Amino acid sequence: MRRILFMAVAACFTTLAAADEGMWQPAQLPAIANQLKQRGLELPPARLTDLAGPTMGAVVSIGGCTASFVSPEALVVTNHHCAYGAIQYNSTAERNLIKDGFLARTQAEELPGDPNLRVYVTDEIRDITREIVGQIDAKVGGLARYEAIDRAQKAAVAKCEKPGIKCDVYTFHGGYSFQLVRQREIKDVRLVYAPPAAIGKFGGDIDNWMWPRHTGDFSFLRAYVGKDGSSRPYAKDNVPFKPKHFLPLNTAGVEAGDFVMVAGYPGRTNRYRLAEETRDAINWQYPTNIRLYSEILDIINRAGAKDAGTAVKYANSVASFNNYLKNFRGQLEGLAKAQAVEVKTAKEDALLTWLRGQDGETAALAADIGELRGVLSEQRKVRERDLVLGYLNRTFLYNASYHIYRTATERTKPDLQREQGFQARDEAKIEGTLKQWERRMEPAVDKQLFVHFLRSYVKLPPDQRVAALDAWLGNAQADDAALVQKVDALYAATRLTQVDERLRWFKAKPAEIEASDDAALKFMVALLPELLQIEQARKQRTGDELRLRPRYMQAMIAYNETQGQPVYPDANSSLRVTFGQVQGFKKDGVEFTPFTTGDGIVAKTTNEDPFDTPATQYQALVARDYGRYASAKSGSLPVNFLADLDITGGNSGSPALDAQGRLIGLAFDGNWDSVSADWIFDPKLTRSIQVDLRYMLWVMDKVDGAQNLLREMGVAGEAATPSGG
Amino acid sequence: MRRILFMAVAACFTTLAAADEGMWQPAQLPAIANQLKQRGLELPPARLTDLAGPTMGAVVSIGGCTASFVSPEALVVTNHHCAYGAIQYNSTAERNLIKDGFLARTQAEELPGDPNLRVYVTDEIRDITREIVGQIDAKVGGLARYEAIDRAQKAAVAKCEKPGIKCDVYTFHGGYSFQLVRQREIKDVRLVYAPPAAIGKFGGDIDNWMWPRHTGDFSFLRAYVGKDGSSRPYAKDNVPFKPKHFLPLNTAGVEAGDFVMVAGYPGRTNRYRLAEETRDAINWQYPTNIRLYSEILDIINRAGAKDAGTAVKYANSVASFNNYLKNFRGQLEGLAKAQAVEVKTAKEDALLTWLRGQDGETAALAADIGELRGVLSEQRKVRERDLVLGYLNRTFLYNASYHIYRTATERTKPDLQREQGFQARDEAKIEGTLKQWERRMEPAVDKQLFVHFLRSYVKLPPDQRVAALDAWLGNAQADDAALVQKVDALYAATRLTQVDERLRWFKAKPAEIEASDDAALKFMVALLPELLQIEQARKQRTGDELRLRPRYMQAMIAYNETQGQPVYPDANSSLRVTFGQVQGFKKDGVEFTPFTTGDGIVAKTTNEDPFDTPATQYQALVARDYGRYASAKSGSLPVNFLADLDITGGNSGSPALDAQGRLIGLAFDGNWDSVSADWIFDPKLTRSIQVDLRYMLWVMDKVDGAQNLLREMGVAGEAATPSGG
Repeated sequence: MRRILFMAVAACFTTLAAADEGMWQPAQLPAIANQLKQRGLELPPARLTDLAGPTMGAVVSIGGCTASFVSPEALVVTNHHCAYGAIQYNSTAERNLIKDGFLARTQAEELPGDPNLRVYVTDEIRDITREIVGQIDAKVGGLARYEAIDRAQKAAVAKCEKPGIKCDVYTFHGGYSFQLVRQREIKDVRLVYAPPAAIGKFGGDIDNWMWPRHTGDFSFLRAYVGKDGSSRPYAKDNVPFKPKHFLPLNTAGVEAGDFVMVAGYPGRTNRYRLAEETRDAINWQYPTNIRLYSEILDIINRAGAKDAGTAVKYANSVASFNNYLKNFRGQLEGLAKAQAVEVKTAKEDALLTWLRGQDGETAALAADIGELRGVLSEQRKVRERDLVLGYLNRTFLYNASYHIYRTATERTKPDLQREQGFQARDEAKIEGTLKQWERRMEPAVDKQLFVHFLRSYVKLPPDQRVAALDAWLGNAQADDAALVQKVDALYAATRLTQVDERLRWFKAKPAEIEASDDAALKFMVALLPELLQIEQARKQRTGDELRLRPRYMQAMIAYNETQGQPVYPDANSSLRVTFGQVQGFKKDGVEFTPFTTGDGIVAKTTNEDPFDTPATQYQALVARDYGRYASAKSGSLPVNFLADLDITGGNSGSPALDAQGRLIGLAFDGNWDSVSADWIFDPKLTRSIQVDLRYMLWVMDKVDGAQNLLREMGVAGEAATPSGG
Repeated sequence: MRRILFMAVAACFTTLAAADEGMWQPAQLPAIANQLKQRGLELPPARLTDLAGPTMGAVVSIGGCTASFVSPEALVVTNHHCAYGAIQYNSTAERNLIKDGFLARTQAEELPGDPNLRVYVTDEIRDITREIVGQIDAKVGGLARYEAIDRAQKAAVAKCEKPGIKCDVYTFHGGYSFQLVRQREIKDVRLVYAPPAAIGKFGGDIDNWMWPRHTGDFSFLRAYVGKDGSSRPYAKDNVPFKPKHFLPLNTAGVEAGDFVMVAGYPGRTNRYRLAEETRDAINWQYPTNIRLYSEILDIINRAGAKDAGTAVKYANSVASFNNYLKNFRGQLEGLAKAQAVEVKTAKEDALLTWLRGQDGETAALAADIGELRGVLSEQRKVRERDLVLGYLNRTFLYNASYHIYRTATERTKPDLQREQGFQARDEAKIEGTLKQWERRMEPAVDKQLFVHFLRSYVKLPPDQRVAALDAWLGNAQADDAALVQKVDALYAATRLTQVDERLRWFKAKPAEIEASDDAALKFMVALLPELLQIEQARKQRTGDELRLRPRYMQAMIAYNETQGQPVYPDANSSLRVTFGQVQGFKKDGVEFTPFTTGDGIVAKTTNEDPFDTPATQYQALVARDYGRYASAKSGSLPVNFLADLDITGGNSGSPALDAQGRLIGLAFDGNWDSVSADWIFDPKLTRSIQVDLRYMLWVMDKVDGAQNLLREMGVAGEAATPSGG
């Protein structure tokens, strides 16, 4: 895999030190202690395996992003784009915190985050593979395997969870191993400080995934608990959580070549996918999603252009869609350039050749890989239908009615038999989402999206149709005007668009819902039985995959070991550590140097979004008023820096740490060449982008007057009086 | 000017050597001999002043581009985009030389260029300021000055020209001085060799003005003359011209830091424009032209998408429009970043302050600057009208009928009283254009453009209307459907769309044209009298400007001299020399290194236009089969290189020369930051882009099998057998 890729680019690049591919589980670090030491880590690697210890104990998940404690009062630092939901939730057309930023000068001024915002503090990760699959015969696949695993997972979770403690079973290597993760769940998370978007999102979608970069992508939250220390939803008299550990700050920062590591929760990578899955991604998945995302954005943007309130409501979605859109395009570009399918095919061929030379037990794995291909081919047959249903489920009306009715039906079962995602433990989150729609949805826009996805649906071939949906559509299947009318009627005859109605129905019994004359509920009552059948068939296939992919991974791991290649699991939102050094990258005719500076912000500033630097900041930068935050080496103000770290989505907000585990910045993005690193990591080109702590502190001190927070983190600010917020 | 700009960027850049701003006239070079020597020139500067000498004698104009002789048989090398007209002229949908490239393996296979393609060999440049304005009272402006200068220019030209010799009077510093340029005009110019567009235009509009760059922007032409050595139009038995000099090749090339100079014909710069002219460019000229070019491109591209023949006919226009469009956008971006208006205003303020401190004669210049502003304000009042008439004159029907009728009316006068551009000496060129439309125009597209510009016309305010055009339009002024109908009728009732009709009418007398029932001619007969009135009013204003701008320039030159700043004239399509060194440039977080290589082509190749590297080339690059053409220093194949040279449009195709005057490449573009250098030159960022001679020779040898041309230039090729064309 690596070798062929290396050949293709080796010609251009000769001098950069190799980067260290690998999103390591903390427990794996002692095994690579030499490598860590050689790269410059000054802490004993074992310290990083202690999840409750001084370093890892401060690193938390906030659900889709990473964050870290930076004060004894549970001040939490993460990316601006990770706090974006909380900022947006508190914004209106009149009081636009996205645009203007926000600073609580006292704890009393801190604002409640969106209802589903959580801080998860990991306190244990334990391998429970035996507990999950130890009793299942190796030959058993399909629904039987799926359900056995499902039961075992739910049992393990139930045994582990208690109030304020969330437990989850994470699947590694596609089912080769399972680990139970126990996290403390903090439910009252407040917005403390966010710079204006002109700093926090400087460069916007134009600069997204790009280097040189000058984004102040940071914000502060605070975790609150009940007075008794217990996890509680937002309540005025809650008090700041007291974390066991918080990260020390290295305000002197790092320079090119210095050791750097990032701890966080990377979401998903595809490093071990089959060549045919890569091909599907290139030929179908990315192009199809690009088309659909573009269409959705088109609908939302047209509506937003007409109404500022709508624009605010969908700002978070638009930001996320744009980000994905650019990401998908980058994936396609990168996968094509890396000749990913050819590389993966060559790797698979080599694996199969190697398997044939092994003894019986190992050689037998080849047949399982063949069977895995069969399962993938079955999944491919319904992918268009599943995609459309997935998109429908993104509309408010479908999503809300589905969650209301599905939860009601699941509630009739004993908790351990309820579907994952619809158990008692999930109800608060579902309810939070039902509330949240209020600030993130406009029925008029939602309706357009609903129509749009139904138009995709009616184009599906006969063997991918959903009979109940066809029946509901009736003649609207072949008549677009009728389809629009049908959806108009649906939205006209539902009261789920009102939050109190949604919450009321969320408490209802199935029979009550089934008797309702609410059009959306009637729609879902008619649809759900068939959705459950579809789900059952999917579980059947997933059960087969859960049998076969671990066999493939077993072969791949064994083979990689013979090749001296790193064996770390694909990202799965569990805690990982990646390490390397501050360094740039080279291309033909251009060298990307590892730091950007305040001068670069001045040069990029046009006073038009997304390059509309606030006047206070601009003047301070032109005056080079860097105070104590300048780099001792260059004398300039470091803004963002590159490192050869192996990160992906979910790592956003992750603390970048120096050799002693002190905070030096926050990871928030990768360069354009890193986008396709989800599939193939290229040590010469894959770079993570961090916002430098010195820039964060400078903005807080010189621009936004957040001296209260600087003091809280033990940094003495410079500005005599706060100059704005 | 320079100082303020420097302050704005000084923060970011510290180490690069200063570049040498200045497009020097050859005669100025001895005055800056020290500077040239210090930069590394190994020739005596005086040799470069000898226009008929070994270096400058080989540099020629091809009208809008520069080229040079590279063999005793008048082989001419220039950019691919400069030969594009000749390549396109010989292309059809069936035999697409643009796409496939072209190589004449013998002189017999060489193809005639487009009828107006010329090679101009400059053999004298002489100051005739006294002859032109010596007799005109300093107080005289308006029509009197305009006509006196016009008469003197025409007389000087008439005295100088003879068959095969073209003379022109060039205006320097807006009329501060005048120079007579005498050029040998070679009329039979043939296409010898062009690589396929996938090499010659590699990167297309995406890479245009960008670095890193990998464009093989070169082609070869040959100049032919009659057997007696006289200039003749294309004739089969013409023979290659024997140039006095041709450029020697330095096949070893240059490296970073080496001296480099470029000799050529830069078209136009605005370094000495007033702040208000800069503001007009930013607020009106560029935005308006961007809008109109986009609209034109839209019309042409829609038509081209439907018909390959149409696409070929408009390929040259589309390439040129796209180039200008990107250029205009770059100008706006650069002018904004450089705060051009503020910089120019500060410079003007400083100039006026300085003038106030001078004695009477010099101090009086301040009042003239005030008067110049008045003239500019008069011009501004009719600029929208003049713009629309200018665009109308780009349509075939307007342009052809105008040139036919105008030439006929001018022919009734003695030659020296005929309007410049419509004298006997100009008739061949006009006739060439009338022929050329045949391969560059589709009536259906032309009609759409005509309608489009008329729609702009009817929106003009009352005081900018043309009465004759209003009369022709009648009720179509306020009725769009009627306007379309009117133009439909115009195109339906003209035979000028046929080339023989155009050429027949071009010989007609005014009375014959006035009696014609051809709709286009009738249209122009009705319009011309008023166009002449408009022209007369413009001459009046131009005469004032010709009195006042030299006074402003006199002040500016005197002031610049006190500031130790370079005083070279703005570009005006006359021969200039610029010198500096091979070097890259830096920005925050990125360093642009001065060479790109073959590996970069491999990395950019996607197999989709404009990155569709031909297979032969791709394979040779992947195999790193560089032969003797690799850089001795880096071992890689140099493709393009950067230098800190002061060039602009018109310099395209200019030979890049080493310290000994040997050819090392061809200038073909500037980096994005250089676009606005037409207004303000920034030594830290303004870079010219050259195609490296080593890459040109490699393509000819290893890809296109042009060994015949290599031999002709004294280079022994490597490839045993030609591998394709």
